[in-house]
Amino acid sequence: MRISNGDRAKILVQALPYIQTHAGRTVVVKYGGSAMTDGALKDAVMSDIVLMQLVGIRVVLVHGGGREISAVLGRLGIESRFVGGLRYTGPESIGVVQMVLAGKVNKDLVRLLERHGGRAVGLCGLDDGMLKARRRREPPDLGFVGEITSVNPAALDNATRNGYVPVVAPIAGGEDGQVYNINADVAASRIAAELKAEKLILMTDVRGLLRDKDDESTLIPVVNVSDVPRLRKQGVVTGGMIPKVACCVDAVRRGVGRAHIIDGRIPHSILVELFSDEGIGTMFR
Amino acid sequence: MRISNGDRAKILVQALPYIQTHAGRTVVVKYGGSAMTDGALKDAVMSDIVLMQLVGIRVVLVHGGGREISAVLGRLGIESRFVGGLRYTGPESIGVVQMVLAGKVNKDLVRLLERHGGRAVGLCGLDDGMLKARRRREPPDLGFVGEITSVNPAALDNATRNGYVPVVAPIAGGEDGQVYNINADVAASRIAAELKAEKLILMTDVRGLLRDKDDESTLIPVVNVSDVPRLRKQGVVTGGMIPKVACCVDAVRRGVGRAHIIDGRIPHSILVELFSDEGIGTMFR
Amino acid sequence: MRISNGDRAKILVQALPYIQTHAGRTVVVKYGGSAMTDGALKDAVMSDIVLMQLVGIRVVLVHGGGREISAVLGRLGIESRFVGGLRYTGPESIGVVQMVLAGKVNKDLVRLLERHGGRAVGLCGLDDGMLKARRRREPPDLGFVGEITSVNPAALDNATRNGYVPVVAPIAGGEDGQVYNINADVAASRIAAELKAEKLILMTDVRGLLRDKDDESTLIPVVNVSDVPRLRKQGVVTGGMIPKVACCVDAVRRGVGRAHIIDGRIPHSILVELFSDEGIGTMFR
Amino acid sequence: MRISNGDRAKILVQALPYIQTHAGRTVVVKYGGSAMTDGALKDAVMSDIVLMQLVGIRVVLVHGGGREISAVLGRLGIESRFVGGLRYTGPESIGVVQMVLAGKVNKDLVRLLERHGGRAVGLCGLDDGMLKARRRREPPDLGFVGEITSVNPAALDNATRNGYVPVVAPIAGGEDGQVYNINADVAASRIAAELKAEKLILMTDVRGLLRDKDDESTLIPVVNVSDVPRLRKQGVVTGGMIPKVACCVDAVRRGVGRAHIIDGRIPHSILVELFSDEGIGTMFR
Amino acid sequence: MRISNGDRAKILVQALPYIQTHAGRTVVVKYGGSAMTDGALKDAVMSDIVLMQLVGIRVVLVHGGGREISAVLGRLGIESRFVGGLRYTGPESIGVVQMVLAGKVNKDLVRLLERHGGRAVGLCGLDDGMLKARRRREPPDLGFVGEITSVNPAALDNATRNGYVPVVAPIAGGEDGQVYNINADVAASRIAAELKAEKLILMTDVRGLLRDKDDESTLIPVVNVSDVPRLRKQGVVTGGMIPKVACCVDAVRRGVGRAHIIDGRIPHSILVELFSDEGIGTMFR
Amino acid sequence: MRISNGDRAKILVQALPYIQTHAGRTVVVKYGGSAMTDGALKDAVMSDIVLMQLVGIRVVLVHGGGREISAVLGRLGIESRFVGGLRYTGPESIGVVQMVLAGKVNKDLVRLLERHGGRAVGLCGLDDGMLKARRRREPPDLGFVGEITSVNPAALDNATRNGYVPVVAPIAGGEDGQVYNINADVAASRIAAELKAEKLILMTDVRGLLRDKDDESTLIPVVNVSDVPRLRKQGVVTGGMIPKVACCVDAVRRGVGRAHIIDGRIPHSILVELFSDEGIGTMFR
Repeated sequence: MRISNGDRAKILVQALPYIQTHAGRTVVVKYGGSAMTDGALKDAVMSDIVLMQLVGIRVVLVHGGGREISAVLGRLGIESRFVGGLRYTGPESIGVVQMVLAGKVNKDLVRLLERHGGRAVGLCGLDDGMLKARRRREPPDLGFVGEITSVNPAALDNATRNGYVPVVAPIAGGEDGQVYNINADVAASRIAAELKAEKLILMTDVRGLLRDKDDESTLIPVVNVSDVPRLRKQGVVTGGMIPKVACCVDAVRRGVGRAHIIDGRIPHSILVELFSDEGIGTMFR
Repeated sequence: MRISNGDRAKILVQALPYIQTHAGRTVVVKYGGSAMTDGALKDAVMSDIVLMQLVGIRVVLVHGGGREISAVLGRLGIESRFVGGLRYTGPESIGVVQMVLAGKVNKDLVRLLERHGGRAVGLCGLDDGMLKARRRREPPDLGFVGEITSVNPAALDNATRNGYVPVVAPIAGGEDGQVYNINADVAASRIAAELKAEKLILMTDVRGLLRDKDDESTLIPVVNVSDVPRLRKQGVVTGGMIPKVACCVDAVRRGVGRAHIIDGRIPHSILVELFSDEGIGTMFR
Repeated sequence: MRISNGDRAKILVQALPYIQTHAGRTVVVKYGGSAMTDGALKDAVMSDIVLMQLVGIRVVLVHGGGREISAVLGRLGIESRFVGGLRYTGPESIGVVQMVLAGKVNKDLVRLLERHGGRAVGLCGLDDGMLKARRRREPPDLGFVGEITSVNPAALDNATRNGYVPVVAPIAGGEDGQVYNINADVAASRIAAELKAEKLILMTDVRGLLRDKDDESTLIPVVNVSDVPRLRKQGVVTGGMIPKVACCVDAVRRGVGRAHIIDGRIPHSILVELFSDEGIGTMFR
Repeated sequence: MRISNGDRAKILVQALPYIQTHAGRTVVVKYGGSAMTDGALKDAVMSDIVLMQLVGIRVVLVHGGGREISAVLGRLGIESRFVGGLRYTGPESIGVVQMVLAGKVNKDLVRLLERHGGRAVGLCGLDDGMLKARRRREPPDLGFVGEITSVNPAALDNATRNGYVPVVAPIAGGEDGQVYNINADVAASRIAAELKAEKLILMTDVRGLLRDKDDESTLIPVVNVSDVPRLRKQGVVTGGMIPKVACCVDAVRRGVGRAHIIDGRIPHSILVELFSDEGIGTMFR
Repeated sequence: MRISNGDRAKILVQALPYIQTHAGRTVVVKYGGSAMTDGALKDAVMSDIVLMQLVGIRVVLVHGGGREISAVLGRLGIESRFVGGLRYTGPESIGVVQMVLAGKVNKDLVRLLERHGGRAVGLCGLDDGMLKARRRREPPDLGFVGEITSVNPAALDNATRNGYVPVVAPIAGGEDGQVYNINADVAASRIAAELKAEKLILMTDVRGLLRDKDDESTLIPVVNVSDVPRLRKQGVVTGGMIPKVACCVDAVRRGVGRAHIIDGRIPHSILVELFSDEGIGTMFR
Repeated sequence: MRISNGDRAKILVQALPYIQTHAGRTVVVKYGGSAMTDGALKDAVMSDIVLMQLVGIRVVLVHGGGREISAVLGRLGIESRFVGGLRYTGPESIGVVQMVLAGKVNKDLVRLLERHGGRAVGLCGLDDGMLKARRRREPPDLGFVGEITSVNPAALDNATRNGYVPVVAPIAGGEDGQVYNINADVAASRIAAELKAEKLILMTDVRGLLRDKDDESTLIPVVNVSDVPRLRKQGVVTGGMIPKVACCVDAVRRGVGRAHIIDGRIPHSILVELFSDEGIGTMFR
């Protein structure tokens, strides 16, 4: 792409109305999938976050880290066990999960944001008791995987008010003194709800919700949360999309303006979502 | 230009380091020439200003209005008289100058900024005694054209702190009770100095300072203020460029970071100046 | 009047309870009529405003300028046309109205207040979108004379909070992009209502509401707004008093504490109204 | 005096420039003499104080109370002993002095100010360790009469910032645990110095400094502090005026703008001093 | 008691949960009885107050002073008259009461707190019109003993917000211009209610409420306010305990968290109440 | 120890002067050694920290974690290598060091403080670029062990101002993009210097500096930093004490009030240091 400085300026100006819409609002981004493993995509996401911060958007970045957890567990000779596609977190794993998420993935992201000119602090659900959880009650049993019982937004509010992007590792403390592993989509959804965010953005490795999951041209751009039960019956929402869609529905029901499932494999997909009319992926409202 | 949303996002991200440099700083723009008369150029400038405001730059817009003054004087049957290229402001004209600048040009700009999503208030040098002047002492005699004796930045500070772009009409009050017409370049330069602005940008109808005034390819991109006397001797700074260059030199000497003479005929020339390495026009430092 | 310093001090002290009543409250003054054309009266009004500001009253000054508009229109060869006593504002006049009110009358008042030791900024309904209007719907057709659709008090609040008297020229922007001429009494009334002012004071060239319009001794000092319909039927409210009384009634109905029609030909009539039990003119409550 | 409302308004306006001069400044008044015993004079002083507070002057009122002290001592059968015109404060008297000044005179003044519409709190030099003292070192021995060693202005600053007139009883704590009686003129002078007051006003029962102490027409309106030694040599400053003049000189030397000895027997003498060109009494600068 | 530094540290740590419970809350202490007359007990109370202030508790200290009042009245030859155990305050006494309480007892306490490292200001109900009262309506007639009609907490709020312990003498101003003597328990109770205090603590010379008033082992540690009528019928609440219990009940009914009657003869009884599970004395809830 | 509530209260009161000395000041604690591994000692330290926070001391807790690092390295089959008693941090270890310190030890401490009623956030030197480092230049080569080049206190200031104890893991970012392992004593020393702390406290497993290292009765309670060279020559400062003493000397030289080497094996040794005259361990000044 060879674009003149004049055309660049014009494009900046065309972003103006979108920036005006979002300035001062809160956007919670769940960061994961390819966007977290591919070097160029990582840089693109970091740039997007820093730009959002600069034009006055309050960004909270919640991340996963399944791949890194599996790698360290592997090196420690602990088998990664999955039940119904979900990680089982046994007593020997939970400490590793905490260590990898809160100590490695989290702080590496903080450093990467800093390298792109952002200001960030790395937190987890244990800081100031931000996330409280108890053992998941629904089957299957996943060991020390928790469900959130309350969210204390004070540390996040302090961070954004002081000009930081808080980067959040999804682990939580239990009333029983146990640490729990929390699904990152769920953590992002509940945090978005607690902060009365304008948007929740889940970065995934799919285009969005597809009417025919093998045909990307059947993307459903907009879904009313009231239509979700029908879409599940019709088999449009299936497999790995079920919990993601549930997070979006839950966020909207709890007062988040819009929830989005976007394709993290596309560079700058967050900005495209924020700064164009068409948006990208599937929006729940 | 047909550019994909992804490429647009990429261009936004490429502006990031420039935005980071300028955020929180003050930029004083002298608005005039073709950029003030051509409809499309006007819209482009307004967009530029609003974008600057949005990314955290404190903008002050100082405007001229010679053409509108001449038009109204003409309709009133008052001849516009020029001495050495400068408007002579007689006792019958000064009231018209005030009325046109502070009442028409100024408030129309405020309205235009609002239509582009900006927040602006229209002030002139009489508000809160912002500009004080006395009759020009250097020849030629230009009637009620004043030279600034002091600048009170309180009303400008209040405006920018409250989120407004102050739009300033260059008229001033005299200790003698007289109103004075002030050259807009000079007013912008002195205001920039008083506000310890990062940049003063003079919008003109020329490319910048040219080594050969008939050959735009001889543009001098950067001038050290200490080299200006030599450039005057060499005949590079002549005619209408003499006072403009003097304003730039004066601003830099009084502590403004950079002063720029840019070509207002090029759309978005302000943004190009702010958001590219090459910049545009001639920079004085 | 030869009064000793001691008696002067005593009089100051006698004003104390009145000052205590008004301190911290907002008073909106519509300035017009003889008080705006006679030099000595002008000085008296300016002194009154500055004194009010000093004892802690938040003053907003809304002004007209019919005479100046007519003068400039005349010099431009545009006939001032009146319909039912109201100025018709044609397409060739509206620009002149804006220019004269916002550029000449307004800024001259700012300067005059400054000369009396006050701090003022000159605004009009276009600044920060303060007054929004649409074309008057009631007959007679008056061209670009508008009726106010909304008032944005932000710029006024910023001004008074920063210690300024905002001086307001009554022109407004329309959603249609048109500028509208607004009756100054109406503008003052609506602004007073939006600011939850304690008082609206309309300066006129009559004593107040007279039971017999040819006999000043029949002044009605106090009117309950609920009695106005009866007074209109009785022919007490007639002619030019009809719109003024309507402004007062409207202001009180919208929450303004008291509305006053006072005689601007009497020096310091505003202070007499504020700082005596008897007051002056007619009070609507 | 029969003065119309219009003339009253004019007189208010004539006070304007004086009010503008003093607004926001601190004035320390030493209250004593006839102004403290005559009912009408008391009311006049209270009104003056409240008016000063209302027009934005920060007032601190320091009072004496010799007459009340003598009365209570008398009722207790303790003889009031004077040495060289100064009260000797013995061990049996100091508790009475504290009780009368801080408990009776002080709180009665607070109540009187409140009745005139002011807001006041009654403090003494013991509150927050405001005044620290040691036993007077110069002869004659006066018992527990102290000289001030330090002034802590925190409680006074808190009071004025919260909108109160602090009323101050002149007693002080010693490092030795003893309470000391402090001359009220001295306390006022040192407090004025610590607060960088614009004015110190000592209310007395004389016209001011007279060239011939038996001829009021020989009042010296202005004294430069550098001329005081000469005036003492000339016998112009004698007797009870010596310590009062010393307080004024000391205050000016420590940075107070002006110090005044005024005649408290004249109603509203404080206002006359503040709000006229001629002032009243003798001014030290 | 010979305790090692390590054991001392352990004891500090054991106080932690209690401190955490009270930090940031308001505690109103009525100070009186032996704790006010015995030197060692006085020092202990002052230390307790300063420690409370330091760990973040907002303390208000209301004091009596019957013994000092009687002493001064005696010296003045005025007989202390009691009606049903309550002081009759005649016209010749009320001034003495004010003087002793507000000028002597109050300021001495301020000085004592300062000597223990605290910061205090001495106020009474006359300051900023804190306590308003009228003559008691219930028999017996007690002269100028008042019942509180309103409490203005502004001066107390200012004091605690600025880091002071306000020390309050219980006298009040009447609408009739009269000063009234107020029972200190009642003043403390009403102030606690107005400040929405967490605790009201009445220091007395008894253990608390005893089932058998001659047997301290029959102390009732906790009383529900709804049980008080029954306790009165049973003769458990009798004599001097009746008004004290009534103050506690009234405080709890008006929103104070807990009210306590504690034994001021025990050193550090306030701290024992605040910083132990068992507490001390009788608690009303 | 069986101590009555009264004696407990007395002990609290005896701590008062020490609390007054430290309130509002900053204390940086390096936490390590036995105090970090023994359960009862851990609880004692946490209580001490929370108590300090509660009485108004700003605490920053810097921790090590050598034992946990060795354990995880061991489980990963990476040998812990030491050079001259210092850990060599190779490319395969640095990621583990970050993960264990910032993810496990750090967040476990945050949780523990919360369980003791404190409010804490877990940070490391990567957050907001708090610690910047480069590879150690002095021999021996220790791999990715860094020396601090700059300290950015913003995140620490935000944390303490918002009422948190910041818990800090000593890793740092390099200008070269590398993460560095930092000695915790050094990190604490430099942070204390940057925050202009009143005290740096290094918790160790020795009594302090001993004249005869085998005889605890030869403890040197106070050392002037100017005497350290002599003590090194005399062989008093040797072995593992050399770097610890160097940290203390460096902190004092950079403006920290006092630096202490204390014995973490003694319960509540921090409180004993803060709240007794004798203190504990060795103080450098």
